[in-house]
Amino acid sequence: MVQVSVSMARPLDDMTLEDVARILGRSFAVEGVVNGPDGMTATVRDDVSYDHLRQAVVKVLRVARHLTEECVFSHEPTDWQGSDAQLALEAAGDVQRLGPGLFAFGGSFLTVRGALDTLLLGIAARHGAKELAYPPLWPIPVLRDINYFHDFPQLAMVAAGVETDFTSRSRFSEAHRRGSGSTAIACTAENGLAPAVNALAPTVCDCCYWLLRDRRDVADQVFTIHGHVFRNEASDEGSLDRLSAFTMREIVTVGTEAFVLARRQVLLEDMKQLAQLLGLRCTIEAADDPFFCNDALQKNLLQTAAQLKYELRVVLFGNREIAVGSLNLHNDYFSKSYDYTTRDGARPFSGCFAIGCERLTYALFCRYGLDLEQWPQPVRSVLRLG
Amino acid sequence: MVQVSVSMARPLDDMTLEDVARILGRSFAVEGVVNGPDGMTATVRDDVSYDHLRQAVVKVLRVARHLTEECVFSHEPTDWQGSDAQLALEAAGDVQRLGPGLFAFGGSFLTVRGALDTLLLGIAARHGAKELAYPPLWPIPVLRDINYFHDFPQLAMVAAGVETDFTSRSRFSEAHRRGSGSTAIACTAENGLAPAVNALAPTVCDCCYWLLRDRRDVADQVFTIHGHVFRNEASDEGSLDRLSAFTMREIVTVGTEAFVLARRQVLLEDMKQLAQLLGLRCTIEAADDPFFCNDALQKNLLQTAAQLKYELRVVLFGNREIAVGSLNLHNDYFSKSYDYTTRDGARPFSGCFAIGCERLTYALFCRYGLDLEQWPQPVRSVLRLG
Repeated sequence: MVQVSVSMARPLDDMTLEDVARILGRSFAVEGVVNGPDGMTATVRDDVSYDHLRQAVVKVLRVARHLTEECVFSHEPTDWQGSDAQLALEAAGDVQRLGPGLFAFGGSFLTVRGALDTLLLGIAARHGAKELAYPPLWPIPVLRDINYFHDFPQLAMVAAGVETDFTSRSRFSEAHRRGSGSTAIACTAENGLAPAVNALAPTVCDCCYWLLRDRRDVADQVFTIHGHVFRNEASDEGSLDRLSAFTMREIVTVGTEAFVLARRQVLLEDMKQLAQLLGLRCTIEAADDPFFCNDALQKNLLQTAAQLKYELRVVLFGNREIAVGSLNLHNDYFSKSYDYTTRDGARPFSGCFAIGCERLTYALFCRYGLDLEQWPQPVRSVLRLG
Repeated sequence: MVQVSVSMARPLDDMTLEDVARILGRSFAVEGVVNGPDGMTATVRDDVSYDHLRQAVVKVLRVARHLTEECVFSHEPTDWQGSDAQLALEAAGDVQRLGPGLFAFGGSFLTVRGALDTLLLGIAARHGAKELAYPPLWPIPVLRDINYFHDFPQLAMVAAGVETDFTSRSRFSEAHRRGSGSTAIACTAENGLAPAVNALAPTVCDCCYWLLRDRRDVADQVFTIHGHVFRNEASDEGSLDRLSAFTMREIVTVGTEAFVLARRQVLLEDMKQLAQLLGLRCTIEAADDPFFCNDALQKNLLQTAAQLKYELRVVLFGNREIAVGSLNLHNDYFSKSYDYTTRDGARPFSGCFAIGCERLTYALFCRYGLDLEQWPQPVRSVLRLG
């Protein structure tokens, strides 16, 4: 347990305290963040040096005090009601837990998830999007060159197989055979795992930009991709709203600044309309990515100051609220990282509209219950459920 | 380089020599397998003891000499022609290489892959299959309990994230930042990777059986699943026919022996009809899984003797032939492994019909070329291409 206090001219407001705890939580096991006699006091359970923690806390404070919660859209259905649908979905067998952060899906859950994707494909088609598919594994350089491992070490996952020699494979084979009781495979020499040359995809769009690397003729274009994405995290409570592996549909724009900004406005309207059609109680507001508490953290300031990220936040039930989608503007981050330009030498901009398919599906079940027949006709129609 | 010779009453025929080389190649870097003055001589590039190699070679010999190539179906279209479509697909941008064994798909490749899946879903629907979806990551015990790590260490892959402490994450963050030149992340202490609690799915059906574990009321049932699967291998030549990550559609049957065997017969007919409708030059023949050269190897004998596995093998062009699908009978392997029974205490049987979606798609492009408009009308109709 390590504790750091930072003296303050006046106590922090509750929202800032919450922000500090949330941001610090990306990198540390936070015990508490409170206003105290010595100023703001943060306590973590990590075995970390005082100096390390102090440095991080000072950075986080600077970021947290400048985050603005700009809300650009709010939808409050008059007849709204919501309750947690997870237990009922599990009882029906439509959602089955495989392990922490991992679920199998079937029945009505799969029906709605598929219907939502068809709806999103319709939006993509109106933008003339070209459909692409990527594998869930990407070569390490794809993520290295956009600094993903540096900015999000807490979320990254790599894929490793056993070395090719007979001795390593035989040893692995014996160590993890049936009856061995193995529940985890240590990344140490005795398991003979070869260096990982691929990482698990953290999102679906990065390959779009990577495939443009070194090109000098990038024109305005729109892509759409559906795929599996992975995060090294899971809900402690086994909830459906934080998964280690989930699916995502994205609509991606690449091109001149004017093109990407104009599309972004239309995609923001698309997002509002989607929320309204589905009858969600929600907001669309400025947000920031969960950057790690090193120098990457400063990017949060840039993100919110420039409103680079909006999140579609949905109330599930009570005061439980989750982000089910986001609208991101990357400026020229990817074209600089992967070195591609337009024909006239300019750095293309890019942006994406992303929906977390399981979260949005879960939100609909919390809103309307398990019996699809009883869902309001307008919602059934928009999802083509009949 | 290690060499082992085994004396023989008479030289092995060419097919058996090939089988020995193929099976040995699952576990060793094989330099050559030939008939020589001292009998059959196998040479491998691995740094392995003579005794180890000799033991493995004797086992492989025993297996190889008993493999039978029983062919239950053969389809030879009269007007057949085929040529490698990969370069043309890449030139059109419909297939883009991301790295060894990893490709991005778009355009007509994605159109055909989707159309094939719709066709397979139709077959599944005729069997009354219930659709399920699994994440591409599975908890280690799912594979441990069916002895996957023991039987296929050469194919297994695990997913690892960084330890939760700040020090490990900071170090990882610095080591693999942009400009670091990292192309691989070693599974050693300095990268701070936590023990892997999940493995990458090697197939799509195992979770079906795992979710039945400990149940005492398993009834006859049919499932269908589409998902991403992973193998720790890649084509040396960067060919589309051996991928590290690909998609698979399966139709899975679970129930009494009579139910599973009867469904298997129908699924075999479905597979024949599929091959005919698509105009493939192909065979359906007895096959065996690539078991590792330890005691798992003996399972090959059991498989072929009992005809537990049939493969749909398609000629792409010249004498290049690949397996695009398989029909597997597991007997009660899964119900014993995961301990589930029917209501009357019997061990359910299971079986599956599996199609490798990218391989079958690739086979169609080799057969009919890139221009979908020019494909024969019957094939276009069955794929609903218009």
